[in-house]
Formats: sequence, structure tokens, C-alpha cells
Amino acid sequence: MAVTFTRPVEYSMLDGANIAYYPRIYDLAHKFFEQSWLEMCGISYPDLININKIGFPVVNIESDFSAPMRFGDEVIATIWIDNIGTKSLTWNYLFHNQNGELLWTSKQVTVCVDMDSLNPQIIPDYLRVGLQKHLSEEIL
Amino acid sequence: MAVTFTRPVEYSMLDGANIAYYPRIYDLAHKFFEQSWLEMCGISYPDLININKIGFPVVNIESDFSAPMRFGDEVIATIWIDNIGTKSLTWNYLFHNQNGELLWTSKQVTVCVDMDSLNPQIIPDYLRVGLQKHLSEEIL
Amino acid sequence: MAVTFTRPVEYSMLDGANIAYYPRIYDLAHKFFEQSWLEMCGISYPDLININKIGFPVVNIESDFSAPMRFGDEVIATIWIDNIGTKSLTWNYLFHNQNGELLWTSKQVTVCVDMDSLNPQIIPDYLRVGLQKHLSEEIL
Amino acid sequence: MAVTFTRPVEYSMLDGANIAYYPRIYDLAHKFFEQSWLEMCGISYPDLININKIGFPVVNIESDFSAPMRFGDEVIATIWIDNIGTKSLTWNYLFHNQNGELLWTSKQVTVCVDMDSLNPQIIPDYLRVGLQKHLSEEIL
Repeated sequence: MAVTFTRPVEYSMLDGANIAYYPRIYDLAHKFFEQSWLEMCGISYPDLININKIGFPVVNIESDFSAPMRFGDEVIATIWIDNIGTKSLTWNYLFHNQNGELLWTSKQVTVCVDMDSLNPQIIPDYLRVGLQKHLSEEIL
Repeated sequence: MAVTFTRPVEYSMLDGANIAYYPRIYDLAHKFFEQSWLEMCGISYPDLININKIGFPVVNIESDFSAPMRFGDEVIATIWIDNIGTKSLTWNYLFHNQNGELLWTSKQVTVCVDMDSLNPQIIPDYLRVGLQKHLSEEIL
Repeated sequence: MAVTFTRPVEYSMLDGANIAYYPRIYDLAHKFFEQSWLEMCGISYPDLININKIGFPVVNIESDFSAPMRFGDEVIATIWIDNIGTKSLTWNYLFHNQNGELLWTSKQVTVCVDMDSLNPQIIPDYLRVGLQKHLSEEIL
Repeated sequence: MAVTFTRPVEYSMLDGANIAYYPRIYDLAHKFFEQSWLEMCGISYPDLININKIGFPVVNIESDFSAPMRFGDEVIATIWIDNIGTKSLTWNYLFHNQNGELLWTSKQVTVCVDMDSLNPQIIPDYLRVGLQKHLSEEIL
């Protein structure tokens, strides 16, 4: 089951062509990723990082940029997980705008790491329950 | 009368010392500035820029950085105007965190410009009414 | 034949884990992409955008993040093209650090657009000559 | 005696008005600030941070934005110090473009801190010699 969040395209995302500069679309995706943890697993990403000392950096990304994002657009993100490995998680992102137009899709493999050493570690059980509820076989 | 908004310190604000990198505090201030227009003047900043072709770039800034912002902190912004000139507006920002600690203050002079030419222009009357309601003599 | 450029990991790339935040790796790639035009085609990217009104936004990206980038590291970028279509160009990026460690690889499909309309257009002949010199069959 | 560096306005600095977005001007200033250490004091800022565990976050900034920065412009930075306190340093920045036009001035007070605790500390003697050579009474 996917989670859904909405954020506006803010001024800082724009480039000289007056559309979102593509590295900032990844940054937007990360903001949604941060929001997902509380809803999926009942723990905020700041707490996961600051207190539990666990993070999920990306190791592989595939993305399609389908339509530009303009200032004031609403980005509606649909986010789900399609693989929960021992140490890795695969996230899927679908971004639409307020008119239902597909903007961006991305599949991102992230690895669970200890934030002090950055070494991979097994995804803890207290996260698995929530993650499995957002596992979907839907293909991006 | 000031307006107030709250936003979290997100991951992308952090630097290698695990606190907000100072240029991104200005970016955060701009996000609050964008939000202010709808509340102060009843028109969103995207509409002001995209439709009315008016923007307010800064020409002078003074800022004090009082305490660091950490991942997951809530930034509570208090924003008011203390001068409405013919073509310029002076904005005041106070940032506190969720513990009431003062983080940042800034006074920013912005100039009303035509977004096509970037030439200064007189602040239109349809903005003045709302702006005057948020005029305060409070000294930063 | 690939082109090669080197840039340091600057402070603004870092995140709270003291390594480069991944959206800023795409931004670094774009900086190298900008540099490539002058060397490949004899025209700077600013001139291409500002004067010739042509740009190359991305439509598809695949990337592998192999090792973290740390403050002060040198990023040595090796960049080549492996497909020149009528309207699209496929770029390949290999990033190593000063110790020869592989950091990042990416394949990025970009489309030639008119910068005013953002509509796709045929890649002009004055760019094809230079681009073809940097065409390589090397597989990423 | 001031130090001088030049950097181009790159694509990522631009906003929807096709000029540099002001928070990124502070980021540009920080890039020049990083470069200054090696030239002023014979130690790179990465080494200062990573090895010596000393950094210089800002606590107060005043800036005037005089003219916009456009894609492809060269920014010529003139940087000097006008106060060396026990624990603080005051930096002055003058930015001109390739046509000699004044773009931006800024005075920034930074505090010497231990990078682990972020507590202020006395500026070490091995930095003072170099800093004093770049002390100037010139008023911004």
C-alpha cells in the first residue's frame, strides 16, 4: 500500500528555464522519503538518524522525467516499497501534478547503514513490520 | 501584526557538522517569505510572479545567527514588515526552535520589480492594504 | 573519446553524515556537463543557452553510487557520449576520487530543446561534429 | 592585502528570473571562503576541518546586492579580513563581474569553533600569521 504526500514547487527549485532543476527533484524526493518513515514505520527519520543511528543512503537510482515542474505546481507523490532485503530497501516514486499529469518516476535502492560507521547493517525488526505494510508488487 | 509559520529542519539543510549550512537558512527564510504573501495579501507568491509578473528580490540583508539548527528541529518563524516604501519593503524574520530558543534574526530590504525587465516598479495598491496590516514598529 | 575534468568536493555538498548528499552529486555532474560543451563542441553552455537558445534537459537517468565523497576529495570525471540521436544525446559519467576509487557512474539521456518553448528540436549540425568526436562504444 | 578568486556563475545558481537566487550567492561566497584558507594560511579548509577539527561558522552577516548575476558571468571576488579577535574573524567580500560592475558586498563575522563540540575556541597561532597578512583597514 502506497503512501501519498503533497508539496508545492517552491521558488528554490526553479532554474533559468523557469522549471525545476533536475537535481532538486531528487532533493524533493528525499523530503518525501523523510516524511514516509513516520507514516510507514511510526518513527520519524530524524529520530531514526539522531537516536537510533540508522540511515538509508541510496546505491542505485533509475528515473524518468516526463514533464516539467513549474512554480506553484502541487507535486503529489505516491511512494511504495517493492523489495525488502536483508539490508536493502527498494523505493518507488510516482510524481503527478495538480492536473493529474505524470511528472516523474523513480526506483531507488537504499541500504541500511549504521550512521557512525556508514557500514551496511541488517534492517531492524522494529522497522520491518511497517515496511511490509507498504510493500507492493505494482511495477513502476 | 506578524505572521507565523513552522517548518522542520530537513535533511538537505544539514552540513558536515550536522547543523544547518548557513546559505540554506536564507533559503528557508525565502520559503517562509513565499508563504507570507497568501496570508498577508491574499495572493500566492507563484500567482504574483507567474500571473502578475511582480517579484521582490532582496537588495540588503542583515542577519544574526544565534544558535544552530539541527535535524528534526521545528523552526517557528515570526515575520513582519517594518517599512513600506514606494518601491521597497523591509521584512523582519525571527526564528525560534521548538524549545523557544532564538536561532536567527534577519532584516531584509526587498524591491518590487517587473519580472520581465527586473526594473523596479511602484508597489501596487492591491498589495498595500494587506502589507499595511502586517506593518509593525517592533524593532528587531 | 572521453573528456576529463576534476573538481573538489566542497563544503556545500556535505550532509549530516559528512559525505556528499546524493542530489548534489547530480548537481556536480551538471557542472561537469556544462564544462563539457566548450571542450567537445567549442561553444560554452552559457552561450548555447543564452545566445543559441538551445538546452539539453535530462529525460532519463540511471546511476550507481559506489563509494561516498568526502570533504576535500578530488572528483575526477570521465565523460563520453554513447548515442547521438536526431533530438537526443546519451551521456555517460564515471567519477573516481584521487585514490582511483570508483565513486559514481551514471547514464543520462538528454533531449535538445528550444529554451523558449522547451519543445524538442533537432540537434543542430554545428554541434554534431564535436559530439561525434566524443562518441564512444564503451559500455558503462 | 586582499586575496582574489574568480568563478563562473553556473546553471545551478539561477532562479526562474534567470539570475542568481540570493541564498546561492552566500553559497558562492562560502566556496571562495574555503579557497581563501590555503592562500592566506597555507592550510586547506578541508584539512582545517577534517584534521585540525577547527571551523569558522558565521554569526553575523551584512550584505548589499547591487546587480544581478547571469549565467556565464565571471564573478571576481576580492576578500580580506578587517578584524582578528581572540575567537572571531571578520571577513569582507566584494564581488564584481567581468565588466567591472559591482555585484555584491558582504561583511561576515565568523567564530572559531571546535568542530566536535561546536564550542568557540581561541584562534590558533598557526593561523594568525597568515590571517594578519590579509588584514586591511579598508572599509567596505
